[in-house]
Amino acid sequence: MKPAKGVFVLGGAHSVYIGRGAPGFVGKDHPDFGKVSNPSVEDHLRDAVLGAVNETGVDPSLIDKGYVGNFLGELFTKQGQMGALLPRVCPALDGKPFARVDAACASGGIAVLACIDALMGSADICLAAGVEVETTVGSRDAADFMARAAHYASERAKDDFLFPHLFARRAKVYTEHYGVSRRDVALAVVKAYKNGQKNPKAHMRAASIDLDTAAAVTSKNQFLSDVELRPHMTLSDCSQLSDGASALILANETGLQKLGLSPSSVTEITATGCAVAGLGLPNDPLFLHNAARAAAEAYRDANIGPNDLSVAEVHDCFSITEVQLYEALGFAERGKGTHLLKDGLTEINGRLPVNTGGGLMSFGHPVGATGVKQILEVHRQLMGKCGAYQVPRALSVGMSANIGGDDRTAVVVVQQSSG
Amino acid sequence: MKPAKGVFVLGGAHSVYIGRGAPGFVGKDHPDFGKVSNPSVEDHLRDAVLGAVNETGVDPSLIDKGYVGNFLGELFTKQGQMGALLPRVCPALDGKPFARVDAACASGGIAVLACIDALMGSADICLAAGVEVETTVGSRDAADFMARAAHYASERAKDDFLFPHLFARRAKVYTEHYGVSRRDVALAVVKAYKNGQKNPKAHMRAASIDLDTAAAVTSKNQFLSDVELRPHMTLSDCSQLSDGASALILANETGLQKLGLSPSSVTEITATGCAVAGLGLPNDPLFLHNAARAAAEAYRDANIGPNDLSVAEVHDCFSITEVQLYEALGFAERGKGTHLLKDGLTEINGRLPVNTGGGLMSFGHPVGATGVKQILEVHRQLMGKCGAYQVPRALSVGMSANIGGDDRTAVVVVQQSSG
Repeated sequence: MKPAKGVFVLGGAHSVYIGRGAPGFVGKDHPDFGKVSNPSVEDHLRDAVLGAVNETGVDPSLIDKGYVGNFLGELFTKQGQMGALLPRVCPALDGKPFARVDAACASGGIAVLACIDALMGSADICLAAGVEVETTVGSRDAADFMARAAHYASERAKDDFLFPHLFARRAKVYTEHYGVSRRDVALAVVKAYKNGQKNPKAHMRAASIDLDTAAAVTSKNQFLSDVELRPHMTLSDCSQLSDGASALILANETGLQKLGLSPSSVTEITATGCAVAGLGLPNDPLFLHNAARAAAEAYRDANIGPNDLSVAEVHDCFSITEVQLYEALGFAERGKGTHLLKDGLTEINGRLPVNTGGGLMSFGHPVGATGVKQILEVHRQLMGKCGAYQVPRALSVGMSANIGGDDRTAVVVVQQSSG
Repeated sequence: MKPAKGVFVLGGAHSVYIGRGAPGFVGKDHPDFGKVSNPSVEDHLRDAVLGAVNETGVDPSLIDKGYVGNFLGELFTKQGQMGALLPRVCPALDGKPFARVDAACASGGIAVLACIDALMGSADICLAAGVEVETTVGSRDAADFMARAAHYASERAKDDFLFPHLFARRAKVYTEHYGVSRRDVALAVVKAYKNGQKNPKAHMRAASIDLDTAAAVTSKNQFLSDVELRPHMTLSDCSQLSDGASALILANETGLQKLGLSPSSVTEITATGCAVAGLGLPNDPLFLHNAARAAAEAYRDANIGPNDLSVAEVHDCFSITEVQLYEALGFAERGKGTHLLKDGLTEINGRLPVNTGGGLMSFGHPVGATGVKQILEVHRQLMGKCGAYQVPRALSVGMSANIGGDDRTAVVVVQQSSG
């Protein structure tokens, strides 16, 4: 979709993403466990929303409307109707229209798309937020909750860890079909952790991993029930169960005028793509067809191709997903996604840096926040605001790709610096 | 909000709403309990979506985009990402952008508003659906799930049945402050059941209640913990735990042209209002201030007043809510809502018929569906399609008022016949 009016990202903020493995996280092995709580869903949302207001300088009473991306608030945090948390965390938002949207791990991307629609008619300045808190239960329960992103009635029984199972199937079929080694796929993991170490808001900012460890298949790092799939998905192939929120402020041209901003001080969303495939229907393990059609729409409407991109955020929920997204987004030919990793092309210093802040693997994956986070990260790279992980050259066009479930909802956004 | 382009309701359909008390419902006392299942969330959604396609004659491949209103799918039915159920129940929808929205009991209204925004820019023909299945657990568990529409962390402890508690407080303070009798409020219950008996899709179509029973306070029909609030909320004051789905198709003028329809064959949404108040913040038990500000926006932008309305759907989650909404929507002065009931003005034969199909009390309250159902019901009344409960005179303007939580999200929609 090409917005019928100009749509601009003004900026935003992330809360500090945390979870098991993060400095300060109060887990079972923490001396204050049971006495001190980790930040609540409301705390994360407040940090992101007030951070976005602060970072952009936008008077929040001028925000017209907004959406909160969230997938499993009713389960992890016993909280629904999260649109109505916004006036609670930012009183100036009282009385305005807000609601929560869910498309599983693509909830954040959908929140931004719904804001873009609002900017065509009912609003000039919008708030897109996303939040998830996932550390309130153990990993097996969390995996059961996450299984609601699949067709639960027909797919749940496949494994206690359904999504790792579904993507292990992709990893097995893909590596065997194309003769790609597990070691080559694991390069995505090493890159993610290396980038996340430079990002003070990354969940896994204190962690690193070398290629031998990332590629290793040991008795301790496997966890799937299915014997054939088991070696194709180790703990290090997975993104994190994270707590976090991200928020960004969008405006159309009228909104920019109201705020006294010029298009050169912001980034522009020049096109979006969105595609949804039916839950539980047959799904090709070799290729992310649904993401590919969302990308095709975005490229067409932005009138660009993959070679025009200078930075990207892709949905690395598992290591194989990053590789398959390289192909769905046209960064590499089919079967050759790992070549980009081997050649270092998607490193921060490469031709097309991908997931510069650590991606879902290291920055973290608070599901409802992820799509918002990606679009904000592309904005921050284009505006030169990424600090220690800033790409050290001028960037003009960025893409983010956010997917929900096993390639069921895909949101692709193209942004460019308008300066 | 006044849509910047014309927005039209083409029609739609409801699944047959069911639950405890409905003919054919398989509950614990049914001989086939444990052997036969009630329809699933997917079954209801399929019935509503295919019904909407059938009723309007719209080729579903021409639908550009849509939203599904749903509040608690992850809990009641273990299913999230419900936008991706749509291509499953209607394969022609494959690849289009769909997502789920949640604003608790106002989820359906929000689904329609999000479609209206889409019709301003990215879409010409939209599908707004809503669905909830609530009978998979007992009423105490269901009440705990529903408590996620409040600020769970600070409000949950008030009562096992939190929402009946919150609205009992309204009933107590309101009746005492204005010297209104419980019997007068109970007139809303009698009206709802009387209307629902003429509606073949109503959950409680087989049930009736007389005023003595509706007003009675007995040891068997009370259930709240708080002794002072207990007599202000009996079982018959509550709407139903229902399973059901509703879907409607909307278009802008370009969409009507694509479909070969003239504005005279559909109804027009001339204005909407939406307001959101912070969860858990202080809340006046005497008046629905948040609904009132949504209504004020809708009246202003439609350039009409309450006297211009000829039919309405109001959110009677509890009997007191209908009375208080009469006042928030300006149908009656403050403290005089029950006068409309006593004078029969909101009966099907009255000056302003309200909830002609039985409202949330008798038609039922599958939470995510309700807002969509209301807008479709207004459409059906304006188009003369309500069969046995059709208002027997020409109608020109209708209003629906859908609220989430204890007056936290409010969606008010004004529709008129364009013929």
